Amino acid sequence: MEKFNASIEYDKRLWSVDIEGSRAYSSALWKAGIITEDEKCIIHTGLDLVHKEWESGSFELRPADEDIHTPNERRLSEVIGAPGQKLHTGRSRNDQVATDVRLYLRKETDSLITHIKTMIQVAIDRAEKEVDILMPGYTHLQPAQPIRWSHWILSHAASWQRDVERLESLQSRINVMPLGSGALAGHPFGLDRKSLAKDLGFDRVSLNSMDAVSDRDFVAEYLFCSSLLTTHLSRFAEDLIIYSTKEFGFIKMSDAYTTGSSLMPQKKNPDACELLRGKPARLTGHLVTMLMALKGTPMTYNKDLQEDKEPLFDAVGTASDCVQIATGVLSTLEPNMENMKKSLAPEMLATDLADYLVRKGVPFRETHHIAGQCVQLAEDTDRLLWHLTVTELKEIHEAFDEDVDGVWSMEASVETRNAAGGTAKSAVLHQISELREWLEASS
Amino acid sequence: MEKFNASIEYDKRLWSVDIEGSRAYSSALWKAGIITEDEKCIIHTGLDLVHKEWESGSFELRPADEDIHTPNERRLSEVIGAPGQKLHTGRSRNDQVATDVRLYLRKETDSLITHIKTMIQVAIDRAEKEVDILMPGYTHLQPAQPIRWSHWILSHAASWQRDVERLESLQSRINVMPLGSGALAGHPFGLDRKSLAKDLGFDRVSLNSMDAVSDRDFVAEYLFCSSLLTTHLSRFAEDLIIYSTKEFGFIKMSDAYTTGSSLMPQKKNPDACELLRGKPARLTGHLVTMLMALKGTPMTYNKDLQEDKEPLFDAVGTASDCVQIATGVLSTLEPNMENMKKSLAPEMLATDLADYLVRKGVPFRETHHIAGQCVQLAEDTDRLLWHLTVTELKEIHEAFDEDVDGVWSMEASVETRNAAGGTAKSAVLHQISELREWLEASS
Amino acid sequence: MEKFNASIEYDKRLWSVDIEGSRAYSSALWKAGIITEDEKCIIHTGLDLVHKEWESGSFELRPADEDIHTPNERRLSEVIGAPGQKLHTGRSRNDQVATDVRLYLRKETDSLITHIKTMIQVAIDRAEKEVDILMPGYTHLQPAQPIRWSHWILSHAASWQRDVERLESLQSRINVMPLGSGALAGHPFGLDRKSLAKDLGFDRVSLNSMDAVSDRDFVAEYLFCSSLLTTHLSRFAEDLIIYSTKEFGFIKMSDAYTTGSSLMPQKKNPDACELLRGKPARLTGHLVTMLMALKGTPMTYNKDLQEDKEPLFDAVGTASDCVQIATGVLSTLEPNMENMKKSLAPEMLATDLADYLVRKGVPFRETHHIAGQCVQLAEDTDRLLWHLTVTELKEIHEAFDEDVDGVWSMEASVETRNAAGGTAKSAVLHQISELREWLEASS
Amino acid sequence: MEKFNASIEYDKRLWSVDIEGSRAYSSALWKAGIITEDEKCIIHTGLDLVHKEWESGSFELRPADEDIHTPNERRLSEVIGAPGQKLHTGRSRNDQVATDVRLYLRKETDSLITHIKTMIQVAIDRAEKEVDILMPGYTHLQPAQPIRWSHWILSHAASWQRDVERLESLQSRINVMPLGSGALAGHPFGLDRKSLAKDLGFDRVSLNSMDAVSDRDFVAEYLFCSSLLTTHLSRFAEDLIIYSTKEFGFIKMSDAYTTGSSLMPQKKNPDACELLRGKPARLTGHLVTMLMALKGTPMTYNKDLQEDKEPLFDAVGTASDCVQIATGVLSTLEPNMENMKKSLAPEMLATDLADYLVRKGVPFRETHHIAGQCVQLAEDTDRLLWHLTVTELKEIHEAFDEDVDGVWSMEASVETRNAAGGTAKSAVLHQISELREWLEASS
Repeated sequence: MEKFNASIEYDKRLWSVDIEGSRAYSSALWKAGIITEDEKCIIHTGLDLVHKEWESGSFELRPADEDIHTPNERRLSEVIGAPGQKLHTGRSRNDQVATDVRLYLRKETDSLITHIKTMIQVAIDRAEKEVDILMPGYTHLQPAQPIRWSHWILSHAASWQRDVERLESLQSRINVMPLGSGALAGHPFGLDRKSLAKDLGFDRVSLNSMDAVSDRDFVAEYLFCSSLLTTHLSRFAEDLIIYSTKEFGFIKMSDAYTTGSSLMPQKKNPDACELLRGKPARLTGHLVTMLMALKGTPMTYNKDLQEDKEPLFDAVGTASDCVQIATGVLSTLEPNMENMKKSLAPEMLATDLADYLVRKGVPFRETHHIAGQCVQLAEDTDRLLWHLTVTELKEIHEAFDEDVDGVWSMEASVETRNAAGGTAKSAVLHQISELREWLEASS
Repeated sequence: MEKFNASIEYDKRLWSVDIEGSRAYSSALWKAGIITEDEKCIIHTGLDLVHKEWESGSFELRPADEDIHTPNERRLSEVIGAPGQKLHTGRSRNDQVATDVRLYLRKETDSLITHIKTMIQVAIDRAEKEVDILMPGYTHLQPAQPIRWSHWILSHAASWQRDVERLESLQSRINVMPLGSGALAGHPFGLDRKSLAKDLGFDRVSLNSMDAVSDRDFVAEYLFCSSLLTTHLSRFAEDLIIYSTKEFGFIKMSDAYTTGSSLMPQKKNPDACELLRGKPARLTGHLVTMLMALKGTPMTYNKDLQEDKEPLFDAVGTASDCVQIATGVLSTLEPNMENMKKSLAPEMLATDLADYLVRKGVPFRETHHIAGQCVQLAEDTDRLLWHLTVTELKEIHEAFDEDVDGVWSMEASVETRNAAGGTAKSAVLHQISELREWLEASS
Repeated sequence: MEKFNASIEYDKRLWSVDIEGSRAYSSALWKAGIITEDEKCIIHTGLDLVHKEWESGSFELRPADEDIHTPNERRLSEVIGAPGQKLHTGRSRNDQVATDVRLYLRKETDSLITHIKTMIQVAIDRAEKEVDILMPGYTHLQPAQPIRWSHWILSHAASWQRDVERLESLQSRINVMPLGSGALAGHPFGLDRKSLAKDLGFDRVSLNSMDAVSDRDFVAEYLFCSSLLTTHLSRFAEDLIIYSTKEFGFIKMSDAYTTGSSLMPQKKNPDACELLRGKPARLTGHLVTMLMALKGTPMTYNKDLQEDKEPLFDAVGTASDCVQIATGVLSTLEPNMENMKKSLAPEMLATDLADYLVRKGVPFRETHHIAGQCVQLAEDTDRLLWHLTVTELKEIHEAFDEDVDGVWSMEASVETRNAAGGTAKSAVLHQISELREWLEASS
Repeated sequence: MEKFNASIEYDKRLWSVDIEGSRAYSSALWKAGIITEDEKCIIHTGLDLVHKEWESGSFELRPADEDIHTPNERRLSEVIGAPGQKLHTGRSRNDQVATDVRLYLRKETDSLITHIKTMIQVAIDRAEKEVDILMPGYTHLQPAQPIRWSHWILSHAASWQRDVERLESLQSRINVMPLGSGALAGHPFGLDRKSLAKDLGFDRVSLNSMDAVSDRDFVAEYLFCSSLLTTHLSRFAEDLIIYSTKEFGFIKMSDAYTTGSSLMPQKKNPDACELLRGKPARLTGHLVTMLMALKGTPMTYNKDLQEDKEPLFDAVGTASDCVQIATGVLSTLEPNMENMKKSLAPEMLATDLADYLVRKGVPFRETHHIAGQCVQLAEDTDRLLWHLTVTELKEIHEAFDEDVDGVWSMEASVETRNAAGGTAKSAVLHQISELREWLEASS
């Protein structure tokens, strides 16, 4: 039962923020007149010592240390004696652990944001450099229209930008201080919570003490954000896995992110991308765990809430790993222009053919059918679309003319889509500069 | 297969936003010189007509109408002829449906926010009126410390406030316009997307056309927000179900939200609250559906994305229903002060006894044990805690004195927790005024 | 609130089993001496009438008919008067609805099993007919070893066989009768539950009345079985989506299961397979809903349990649709032997080269490295693996000899794997006959 | 990347089954004539040695040991030299790991079944001993009818019996041998898979080699079974948490399963039950992870499948812990007959009053309303239901007579429900004997 109850094994990573919280709290107790300045100083010195023990690896856990607070406070009292007994005045494990987790997650969220921004930076650098490479754009994994390779890169970067926005918005909900809520009913010794919050870098103090000790929304929201982030990376990974098949051959991944075999040295298993593809499963599982654990629990603190930490800690590690792996994959892969070009079939210009007719005044719905007839004729006569003669085209519709030749170019096709967000070089470069400005503004 | 493929049954609710989008889009085509002013006017008149048919219920669906766009465009062409064939120029179903869903969800999110704010308003009105009622505060469903009934109400309201904050933050990610992205590669006819976005009330245009047609983040995020919202309501409902048992008897729910039986007229089954308790299961299920459907799908549009709509539409309806039901339950229940008072046992003042000693200078960790000894003595001698004599208390610890009498009051206990977020009347009223100001500022 | 509470909209499909249950129950009441034979006969006649009304579509629901039992019993009393008032004696909605859902699901599970068996039949017929087609076998989507096309088909059929086994095992847990459990405490009028169970085709009667009215395990288990079934189909679909890309070109799907466009008549979007890929998301969502709704609910019946039906009904329909669609896709697709052959690269025989050396007595771990060296040499000298000379091979390892030529055959490679479950023709045909026998034995 | 890729940390627990598999496999290689008897013996001796090193804790892992197979095979070769190089002939990591996990899970499932049976044994022993204690039976957490305390215990035991049935059925799907499937295409050296399966205690060999290496159904099914099992325990825990509140006071939990505080020694937080209530969240999360990781992955082995192990290992540990904790809680709690009796209110006999009238020939639907009127009269005149006079009752309906007195007994009420599964003493004892016979038959 003790094992079932204890959380110290995974709580351990909170040692540093727990000490940070205790330091600020003891200062607040002193300001409120509950301990003397001397006592405060002794406590601070003691906390420094405990901190050093953790840092140097010499801190010793005991069997009775069931969570992170017990050993820190126990050790403090061993080191400084009586004043250590006063540190917890008016504080409870409930508000303390909630505070610790928030301090921890604030840092980790900052760190994750930084990693994602680095990944976006890698994406835009690569997109800029390789903006002239063309490739097929797919819908339903069937070739649809030519696009720029950079446009494909940026389509993923665009989703990562939203991940950053979401995490930044979440920070404002993480950064709320529960400390001073006691076990559930609040603080009875005139603590100045706002001043304490300021010391600990919190934006706000929690509104209601009962809510404060049982609120795990910020954990659930982090789990959601990291689920969605890794879902994005799974789509990125799926593209890369398919593009690196022998049959597509669009990219070659770096050896660092593939696994060969001594037997088939030419075989490169895209292990990194496969792991990326699978990881959202893990984080979505954690998200379900958190929401389901919360469901139907009565106010206020219940032990069920302890289920928050393992999923959270694992999610923090996994999300960070995934982003860094994806960054590595993206920065080291090599596109194969030749193979991309080979996959650019003339039929992918059918839309452009229709657009050509629109420009000649044919109603859009009609152009669709006409272009379809052309593709069909090429198919039936076993020729490439662009080998149809103008005479043949004219027979299908009179609006066709010599200038239809201008349609038969992949380059022209991507250039024509020059509205914001499109495939034209200018539009792609504009996406890059938008992202670059955003990165600069937010760093 | 046709049935398997079609989405029209649940797509139907998009008819109005689909027309709204088409109207603005035709104006943009006109501005870009793709259609004439006359054509634009005819299209607008036609769209008005189609709108009226939907509104009056006379719109007729046909078997081939597989999604919402098909019948709207078909009907338009039936009504106005040729110009209808031009409406879709440069637009594809991919960017059109993404735009429709965003227009729809923008409205529904606004509406949900309004409902939650109304619920918070009901909560603070009730909390203000009944601020003098005391009840037991629980941790682990065991009585811990006395609290104000209003403090309990506000503990739930505090979580609802976060729901509003989350939804407001989400709005900025919903309100991004994908229109003008085509099937995947962008718009080839010089569309002014920013101006079109302005016409449709969008804050921004999407960055990248491929991302724009396959981004369902805003759906996933809405599903998460509504999952967490209803999880909050499930905790609220669980409290109420327990408080309305015969054994607790803290509240009486209105007949409107309970179900009796002809057999046991005195029995009131808290059906509304039980449904509220169960609903997050439904929404979390939908959230899993969305994330799992997205996982590992290649860029860009794939038919799997069609799985977004049914969960979303159901979530929108469920979340709205839940909030309104919870509001009704809260506004019509009756607290039973007598029974709450009966449950306020003297042992719930043990913390206050310890706090008393802290004020006398005894270190906190020690006070804990002393108070424990007092409770034990009362238990052992089968007396109420407050019937221990000062002499007896002094024998346990010398710091006890005649003024310990001041501890033996539930009212005094809640009043002593007067730091921000606590149970003191001033602190509770402060919570109310904070929420009230926030409601006013944001409406 | 009434709308929030009611379940009649989706309950409707239970009308037939509800009448079936009532008929048997009234017979049991007669046997127990609670109603007369006359009353029983009148009830039966009345139920026949109600049945006909439903069947003919003339049954009219009223606003107060909140679930399926209310209108059936109401209508019965309208039709036959007084005896209708006795039908419900000793029965409650709790045991009645549980019985109805079990009767319903028993039929649907039988039907689903039949559909899956048909799909397996299609698979083995196809596998038998096309057993001579070779294709690349993939791990990590990288070509690994040659396999038979039929072996690939059977790899999916093998997973479907497990789905049948699971569903058959589930039937024994569905087919338990809760009727006679009352609201929660049992039946007070000497009902012979075993005899009633026999009449209704149930294998067993439930053990405990409280458990019987609140047990939804069989619903959860059905949701799991259908989640896993559709997960199998999603993997099948993913293979087909990739195999039908232009770049792979291994198969051509029937027009019935793809969607073209008027614009690009050559483009075939594999919509059916994409929907199949997405559907497990929906069913896993439902499974989460059921488990989460049950979590932490107190004994016995609570209204939260009402969340079981919509997910179940949707799962029943979806699972059935998916299996039939997958069957259709499989029976109508066309393999492209040419393209499969083109993808069979010599390096895929590296394993066979190593196996050749094993047969010459070289330890396995060593053979791995040697074969690797050969592949590398071919790569370095830009030749196909099988163009290396025996002399060159001998230089790498002395065990190579003229007979190495026997290795250079895709056909030989698949034939060598003739242990049970392998790719040799005999082994593949054996798989087919095993499945065929199993199908015959179980039908 | 190496860290991201490696699984050795959690794979470690497979060391013993991995050696077990290798021992049998080397024997099979010998039977197939691939290695000599001498080589086989040397390999066995070497495996014994490696086994001892693990057992004694002296086995040393190296940085390159990424999964469990690498270090075992490496160490074997270090210890016995050349023959160790032959052990892996015709085997691949893919079929080896699948075999290991099945061997592991087969044992763990047996062990879990044993734990659940022990729990059921504790339940029926307790139920038998305390069969005369009466308590309120609840629906919607509102008192409905009197039941036996043992009937409540057995309602939970009935759900645990299903858990055993499900796990036993799962065993037949776990116990299928993939060994001999190679990387994906089968075994080329005439391995007798059936004989090998027999040696390893497997019921069957897998049908198809490609399916065999990528089938994780048995993992998903175990995760489902353990999710549902712990969901049952969460309902059990919820009942106990509520019954042990101060307000209900039906049971007292043992100190071993509650946590007190030095401050409030009388307070007993039901930590064990709260953890039990939360644990299905964890297992359902794992189940989602597995299904989502599998969704849409192509045949055959992909690295995503590696996500199976951590959830599985955690589920195995959690399920086992939960059952043992629940067993401990159940065996050590003390029911409080006094408080249960206090909660048995006269209105709970309303159903019996209606049943009384049924026996007098009044139609059931009518009796319902009459009993309701009686309850109402008692309520209105502020009396207990059983204090209504026969005259008063007769005024409500003429069928009432002096013998109505027989209704006013909780004991009589539970006794009247004597059909199978009901609350009568005979029916409860019958449930106990059914479970006992089943336990004996299956052990």
